[in-house]
Amino acid sequence: MKPTLQLDAQGRLRHLLTLEGLSRELLLKILDEAEAHDKALRGADKKQSTLAGRSIINLFFEPSTRTRTTFELAAMRLSADVLNLQVSASSTSKGETLFDTLKTLEAMQADMFVVRHEASGAAHFFAEHAAPGVAILNAGDGRHAHPTQGLLDLFTIRRYKGPADDCFEKLTVAIVGDVLHSRVARSDIHGLRTLGTKEIRVVAPPTLIPAGIADMGVKVFHDLDAGLAGADVVILLRLQKERMLGAFLPSLAEFHRDFGLSKARLARLKPETIVMHPGPINRGVEIGGDVAYGPQSLILQQVSHGIAVRMAVMSMILGAPATERARARRSRR
Amino acid sequence: MKPTLQLDAQGRLRHLLTLEGLSRELLLKILDEAEAHDKALRGADKKQSTLAGRSIINLFFEPSTRTRTTFELAAMRLSADVLNLQVSASSTSKGETLFDTLKTLEAMQADMFVVRHEASGAAHFFAEHAAPGVAILNAGDGRHAHPTQGLLDLFTIRRYKGPADDCFEKLTVAIVGDVLHSRVARSDIHGLRTLGTKEIRVVAPPTLIPAGIADMGVKVFHDLDAGLAGADVVILLRLQKERMLGAFLPSLAEFHRDFGLSKARLARLKPETIVMHPGPINRGVEIGGDVAYGPQSLILQQVSHGIAVRMAVMSMILGAPATERARARRSRR
Amino acid sequence: MKPTLQLDAQGRLRHLLTLEGLSRELLLKILDEAEAHDKALRGADKKQSTLAGRSIINLFFEPSTRTRTTFELAAMRLSADVLNLQVSASSTSKGETLFDTLKTLEAMQADMFVVRHEASGAAHFFAEHAAPGVAILNAGDGRHAHPTQGLLDLFTIRRYKGPADDCFEKLTVAIVGDVLHSRVARSDIHGLRTLGTKEIRVVAPPTLIPAGIADMGVKVFHDLDAGLAGADVVILLRLQKERMLGAFLPSLAEFHRDFGLSKARLARLKPETIVMHPGPINRGVEIGGDVAYGPQSLILQQVSHGIAVRMAVMSMILGAPATERARARRSRR
Repeated sequence: MKPTLQLDAQGRLRHLLTLEGLSRELLLKILDEAEAHDKALRGADKKQSTLAGRSIINLFFEPSTRTRTTFELAAMRLSADVLNLQVSASSTSKGETLFDTLKTLEAMQADMFVVRHEASGAAHFFAEHAAPGVAILNAGDGRHAHPTQGLLDLFTIRRYKGPADDCFEKLTVAIVGDVLHSRVARSDIHGLRTLGTKEIRVVAPPTLIPAGIADMGVKVFHDLDAGLAGADVVILLRLQKERMLGAFLPSLAEFHRDFGLSKARLARLKPETIVMHPGPINRGVEIGGDVAYGPQSLILQQVSHGIAVRMAVMSMILGAPATERARARRSRR
Repeated sequence: MKPTLQLDAQGRLRHLLTLEGLSRELLLKILDEAEAHDKALRGADKKQSTLAGRSIINLFFEPSTRTRTTFELAAMRLSADVLNLQVSASSTSKGETLFDTLKTLEAMQADMFVVRHEASGAAHFFAEHAAPGVAILNAGDGRHAHPTQGLLDLFTIRRYKGPADDCFEKLTVAIVGDVLHSRVARSDIHGLRTLGTKEIRVVAPPTLIPAGIADMGVKVFHDLDAGLAGADVVILLRLQKERMLGAFLPSLAEFHRDFGLSKARLARLKPETIVMHPGPINRGVEIGGDVAYGPQSLILQQVSHGIAVRMAVMSMILGAPATERARARRSRR
Repeated sequence: MKPTLQLDAQGRLRHLLTLEGLSRELLLKILDEAEAHDKALRGADKKQSTLAGRSIINLFFEPSTRTRTTFELAAMRLSADVLNLQVSASSTSKGETLFDTLKTLEAMQADMFVVRHEASGAAHFFAEHAAPGVAILNAGDGRHAHPTQGLLDLFTIRRYKGPADDCFEKLTVAIVGDVLHSRVARSDIHGLRTLGTKEIRVVAPPTLIPAGIADMGVKVFHDLDAGLAGADVVILLRLQKERMLGAFLPSLAEFHRDFGLSKARLARLKPETIVMHPGPINRGVEIGGDVAYGPQSLILQQVSHGIAVRMAVMSMILGAPATERARARRSRR
């Protein structure tokens, strides 16, 4: 990726495709914005007029009710008009027709596309070909990136381990489970590194660890207890059960025994260790139900923070002065 | 059900799960509110700002375009933000994951869930586990209850047989058809009894009468002409054709002959008898097409009243002072 | 069709079902309105309050994400409330239940139905039975008509070959491809004739030309080069590939060779010839990808114009004084 594709000439966020390459200053600015939105959401007036008159299209090539809902709610709370398009990826499997889809929707004068696609790089493709004045927000592309999930994880960690921005420098974070297929893990690692996290671990059986992950500056563990020892933050990943059995795993019961976070296992960690999960959880697989709703779990808080973080990103990108955006739009013709 | 689950400490509506146990005063108050909304809908300005900034999620585990549409329109006319989630019931068949779904959506800071589920009791389950500040509106659960349909039926009867609140005390109401599977019949019976209806009848072949229905204070008829004799109000129920044949019924033609409201049969009743049906109708099965659109039919008026009644319930539940609701929301964390 | 079905007693647009029979004055008035909307869309403030409080239901019996999206965006930009209903045509295949669907949705107090149906005449059926105060907008019915597409084509031609209203009198327009199944072609021809187009041609293999088309005042060509010679405007039609092969066509490759617009073929035409297509395009079938995004192509501009044209039609129909509409609505009961 061209490192500046996400930023405009003034260094402001133009698209959000990946956390890789975003500066510490920009990451912290997004988190600060999200703090303000989160505070407003818990107050009496949850709706702002920031994006009134703007149009945001949720363009989902891969179904995800949950993620789509968070983006839709975030956009509604900024008073944007939101339109949901569920597109079959098969009908646009050729790059050229993906291009046609982008250009057609652009011509409808939408301001932002929230793109979810099973292929890594789809959001980049869109951003590279997007017209001036059109923003792309990556809502998950293949195994590559899920930047708003990464941001909400950073937000959650800072809120519960901070509030100082340099709190990450004292933290050991263990990311546990199906690292191989996880775009969440990749986005978390990029963000955690940029914010100076003391130690980042990935913990999984060898079949679920991607080659070359150590180059990202993480420590690899194949034993859960060793990987969790001393951790301040445990991020569990969702196991894609249907894709797993046979190919990568012996059985779900064995996975839970070896890599699931049970209450007994959690009890051996420091009491202030926090537990996170991007959801939806598989009870009894990567996490016990009593852990998911236990006092150390922040899983539901993560969901709330996800709305605030998405509002922050949308308003930072689209909140540019309307006159400036209209100029960009006129120049397209 | 805990009798007070639907009410808050001040006796105000907090959820709407069933008409069972709601007081005469509260039922009439909802109908009065709905009258005001109905009047506004027929005027020049159909939109109110009552729920601006509130978020309502239509959570449908069972598809129902028609019911979903009425809730969506009602919410839009109160200026709420509405989000539709069609969830496959199979993916949440275990109680624990239904719980996860509720908790996750709650964390998105929605104010109300309109819940439709094929399982009786689903809405109660949600209400029992809902956080403070989150309201549950039952849009039909299994064979159990469909309270907004019951309310719109009461509204329609009062409008055409009233306007006095005690009009019910002079009325004989016949509910005809598939009582066994009908949540509408149950909600109607609860509401009609509370408002003091003189006589409530259920009319159906023995296979479509649930055991113990006489305990609800209704008279059971297996002969349509006897059941209709002297009726002021006829409420026909929709026959779930696909579930019926073989198991409960000989044939649709025989059902129509014995339990369908034809024009000839209607002509034998008092000319001021009104005909109702929750829709969508099966023409030539439970009702003749000429009856459905005849002068005694109020089927389309019921649809209109449904919007007003849903607006009334939504605004009574969510219209509480915003400061009070924000306090409840903050206390969740 | 009753020629006045689309107009009210004052000659104003009441429904939009077909361009057939609409006067030159009315067509031009719509185009002028659309010009104003298009200008506003390119400015800083894309949202108008014209239809605030009005409800528009997109009633699609045939799936069409793209068309539905343009109507939804147009309605949103006029501040209307929009509700999407995707209805299976099979569930309403009998005329009577289509009637039931209309009457039920009318009772919900919607102001306009945007109707898409695979059966020719469905929109007319709705308009004939619609209550006062309810408007029908045809979004494509069978092979019959697609009037908003016809209008946006007229708009595009006038913008690039005008701006004078009489620019059509000097133009030769070639409509190329599957004329047989095309509602777009029919709507284009009606509009182009009314605006006095010098010459209208249809160009297709004999199997894709409907009987009697010459009666519409067009010239029929079976040879592409002859049909394109001297054309100022080329409108390519989308080939419904799945319905075509075997029955009407030898192969896609042969169709492209004989009736596809390649770059080489376009180079033989006048450089000021414009190329249009209703989308989505089949690359390499009716059009080469390099032509679709070449300098003479207006395909993406057509999409933009489609929003403006739909806003124009919606606001002309629904923008009538609110008091007048409320009167019509009250008279229904």
